[in-house]
Amino acid sequence: MMALPVRRKKVKIDALRAALEAHEFENVAKVMEGVAGADIAPMLTTLDEEAKALLLQVIFSSKRAADIFAEMPDKLLADLLGELSIPRILTLLQSVEVDDAFDIYQEVPEEFRLEVDSALPAGRLQQFKRLQQYSKHSVGRRMDPDFFAIGPTVSTDDAIARVRAQVSEEQIFYIYVIDETQHLLGVVSMRQLVSSPSEVRLQDIMTKTPVVVRDTDDADIAAKLVADYHYLGLPVVNNDGKLVGMIRVDDVIDIINEEATKDIYQMFGLSIEDRVFSTPLESIVKRLPWMVINLATVFLASWVVGLFENSIEKVVALATFMPIVAGMGGNGGTQTLTVVTRGLALGEFAFTQAYRAILKEIFVGISIGAITGLITAGVVWIWKGNPWLGFVLFVAMILNMMIAGFTGTAIPLLLRTLKQDPAIGGGVIMTTFTDVFGFLTFLGIATLLLKYLV
Amino acid sequence: MMALPVRRKKVKIDALRAALEAHEFENVAKVMEGVAGADIAPMLTTLDEEAKALLLQVIFSSKRAADIFAEMPDKLLADLLGELSIPRILTLLQSVEVDDAFDIYQEVPEEFRLEVDSALPAGRLQQFKRLQQYSKHSVGRRMDPDFFAIGPTVSTDDAIARVRAQVSEEQIFYIYVIDETQHLLGVVSMRQLVSSPSEVRLQDIMTKTPVVVRDTDDADIAAKLVADYHYLGLPVVNNDGKLVGMIRVDDVIDIINEEATKDIYQMFGLSIEDRVFSTPLESIVKRLPWMVINLATVFLASWVVGLFENSIEKVVALATFMPIVAGMGGNGGTQTLTVVTRGLALGEFAFTQAYRAILKEIFVGISIGAITGLITAGVVWIWKGNPWLGFVLFVAMILNMMIAGFTGTAIPLLLRTLKQDPAIGGGVIMTTFTDVFGFLTFLGIATLLLKYLV
Repeated sequence: MMALPVRRKKVKIDALRAALEAHEFENVAKVMEGVAGADIAPMLTTLDEEAKALLLQVIFSSKRAADIFAEMPDKLLADLLGELSIPRILTLLQSVEVDDAFDIYQEVPEEFRLEVDSALPAGRLQQFKRLQQYSKHSVGRRMDPDFFAIGPTVSTDDAIARVRAQVSEEQIFYIYVIDETQHLLGVVSMRQLVSSPSEVRLQDIMTKTPVVVRDTDDADIAAKLVADYHYLGLPVVNNDGKLVGMIRVDDVIDIINEEATKDIYQMFGLSIEDRVFSTPLESIVKRLPWMVINLATVFLASWVVGLFENSIEKVVALATFMPIVAGMGGNGGTQTLTVVTRGLALGEFAFTQAYRAILKEIFVGISIGAITGLITAGVVWIWKGNPWLGFVLFVAMILNMMIAGFTGTAIPLLLRTLKQDPAIGGGVIMTTFTDVFGFLTFLGIATLLLKYLV
Repeated sequence: MMALPVRRKKVKIDALRAALEAHEFENVAKVMEGVAGADIAPMLTTLDEEAKALLLQVIFSSKRAADIFAEMPDKLLADLLGELSIPRILTLLQSVEVDDAFDIYQEVPEEFRLEVDSALPAGRLQQFKRLQQYSKHSVGRRMDPDFFAIGPTVSTDDAIARVRAQVSEEQIFYIYVIDETQHLLGVVSMRQLVSSPSEVRLQDIMTKTPVVVRDTDDADIAAKLVADYHYLGLPVVNNDGKLVGMIRVDDVIDIINEEATKDIYQMFGLSIEDRVFSTPLESIVKRLPWMVINLATVFLASWVVGLFENSIEKVVALATFMPIVAGMGGNGGTQTLTVVTRGLALGEFAFTQAYRAILKEIFVGISIGAITGLITAGVVWIWKGNPWLGFVLFVAMILNMMIAGFTGTAIPLLLRTLKQDPAIGGGVIMTTFTDVFGFLTFLGIATLLLKYLV
C-alpha cells in the first residue's frame, strides 16, 4: 500500500510532464492534483511554449497558482511574471497569505506595477507597502502580518470556537493574547488550549513572558531562537511592544537554508544572488570584484617569488617544488577556515574559548605539516638525490601549515570582533597568507642554505 | 515592557554565571528559571570545577537536566556523562522523549553501559535497542517513536478528549489514524480536528494519502520534503507500511543545519565530526587522509613544472608569475564549484539544465580570465618591459579560467551521476585541475614563445 514517497512522487511528476507534452488538458488537470507546487514550479521553466501555456491555464483554473508560484526562485519568478497577464498577476497576489503574496509582489515587473497597485484591494496594497518599509534581511520582511490574537478574559471554550470559525490554510500553533492597545500579554499554545479545562480564562493559562523578536531584528536572530529553543513560531513586536506579526518555523527553514548558503558563498567572494540559473552577465558582474581583489593578492605572492629570482636561477628545482608548499598550506588553511567559520555560525564558540581554538589549530597544522613534510622530504631526496632540498621542504611545510592554522582561525575571529561577517572573503584573505608565507619560508630557507643545494 | 529578547537573554545568562561564581545555591536556582537549556549547556564546559558541581546539582534538582543535556554537542555530552553518577545518568535517560534520550544514551561511556542497561526500565531499553538498529543517517535514527495514533471510527470529540488526557511536553500537530494492525490510514491535523463539527468520525475528515517517509530512508529525504512542502511533521512507516514513528519540523531544522555543514566540509575533505571543540588528535586523524591525497595531487603539479625546468632556467621570471595563473584559476574554480554544489543541494538543477550550467560557467570563466588577464598583461609589460611575457599570461589565464569553469561544474555533476556525494573532495580535485592546467598552459605557451621572452 505504501510506496516509497519519493519514488511515487517521481512517477507523478513524469506523468504530468508526459500529459503536458501530449497537450491533454483534462488529463493534465487530473494528474496535477497529486503533484506538489514545489515540483510543478520547475516545469514552467523547462517546458516548450505550448506546453507551458497549457500548464499555466490549468494552474490558474485549479486555483493552485499562488501555491506553485511561491515555490519559485525570485529571478525565475520575475521572468514568469513578465509573461503573465495583469488579471493573472492579481489572482496570484490575492489568493495566498500576505507574506507569500508579498514575495510575489516584489518581483512584479516595474512596467506593470502602477496598474497592479491600482487594481489591488486597498487593504492588501497597504499591507504590502508596510512590509516594504522593512529592510531586506529583517524579521519584518519575513513575518506573516496575519496572526490569531484574542483578549485575555476570553474563555478556553470561546477561544476554541473562534479557532473553529477561522478560515485559514495555515496551521495555528499559538493563540496570542493581547490587550486593547495590541500589546502582547502572553501566548497560549493550541495544545495548552485544548488540554485546559472549559471556561478557564486565557490569562490564567497563558505563558506570560514569551520570547519575542522585534520587527526590525535581523531575520537570522529569529531563526537561531526558533532552532535553539525548538519553537514553532515567534510573536513579532514593534518598538512599542505592539504585536505586528508572527514568524513561523517554515519561514525559519527558508532563512536557515539561505544563511548556510550565505556563509560559504561569502568565504569565496560570491554573492547569495549568484545561482546556477543566473545569467552569465549577472554572474560575471557579481564575481569580478573579488577576482580583481584576488588578482592583487596573487601579485603579492608573485612579488615575493620575484625577490628570490637569484636563488631560483641557481637552483631551478626550487621553482618545481614551490607549488607543494603553497598548495598544501592553502588546502590546510581552508580546512581550518571552514571549521571555524561554521563553528561561529553554529554557536560552537559558546562551548570553547577563542585562544584554545587558535592553539589547537596551530598544533594540528604543525602536526599535519610534519607528517606530510616528512613524506615530501623523502620523495624529493630520492627524486633529486639531494637531502638538503628535502630538508628545506620539510621545514617550510611545517612553518606554512602552522601559519595556515593560525590565519585560518584568526581571520574569521578577527572579522567577527570587528563586527564584520566572519565569512566575507575569508577564503581569499587566507590563501593570500598561505601563498605569501609559503613562498617566503620555502625560498627564504633555500636561499640561506643555497650552498648545499647547488 | 518588551526589551529586545536577545539582549534580555544575555543579561540573564550573565546573572546566572555571576551567581554560580559566587556559589549561591538559592540564587542560582532562581536565576536559572529564566534561562533556556541551549544557554545553560555551554556553561557546563567553561565553569571551574566547584561552580560546575553546583550547577549540576541545581540542574538535577530542578528536573531540567534532560532539557539541558539534550542541547549539547555529542562529544561534550560524552565527556560530561563520564563525570556523572549512574543515578544521574538514569534520570537523564528517563525524563525526556525517547528520541532525545536516545541521543544521550548513545554517548554513555562504555564502562557504564552494562550498569545503565540493567537499571533502565525494560520498555525504554527495548526502544533504545530498536533505534540502534537503524543506520546512522536514517530517518529511523531521527524519528520520535512515540506518536499520537487513534482508530478511524473515533469521533472528533473523543479524539479531542484523548489529546486533553495525553500528558506530554511535545506539541501535537497531527493525529495519525491507524487500523488494528498499525497500518497508517490517514492523518488529521490538530487544526482540522478542532475546526470539524462534533461527533464526526476521523475517517471522514482525515487526509487519506498522506506523504510518508520510510524508517530506512536517508534523513535528508525527510528534511527536503518538510522544507519543500512546509509540513510540520511526517509519519514514518516501515517496510510493511506500519506506522513506527514521526519526524518533526524541529528535528528537520537540526538535519538541515547538519546537511549544510556536511556539504562544505566534504568539499574540503573534512568530516562532519571535526568541530571547533574536537581534540587536536581527533582533528589530525580526520584531516590527514585528505591532506595526503592533496600531497599526491600537488606533486602532480610540481611534476608538470619540472617538465619546463629548461624554460625556467632561461627565463627565471616565469617562476615569478607561475602563482598568478594557478592562484586565479583555483579561486575562480572554487567559486563555480561552490555555486554548483549548493545548487545541487538546493535543487536548483530542477530549474535549469546541466549542459547550460556548464556552458555558462565556461563563458563566465573566459570572460573573467580575459578581463583579469588584460590587467595582468599590462602590469607585467610595465614591470618587466616585455609585452610577450604579458601576452603569455593573458592567454594562459583565459585558458585556465575556462578549465576552472568547466571542471568546477563538471566535477560535482559527474560525482552525482556516479551516485557519489557531489561535495566529497570536490575542492581538492578541482584545485588539482587548475594547478596542473595552469602550469601546463602558462609554461607550455612560454616554451613555444621562448625566443621572444629571453
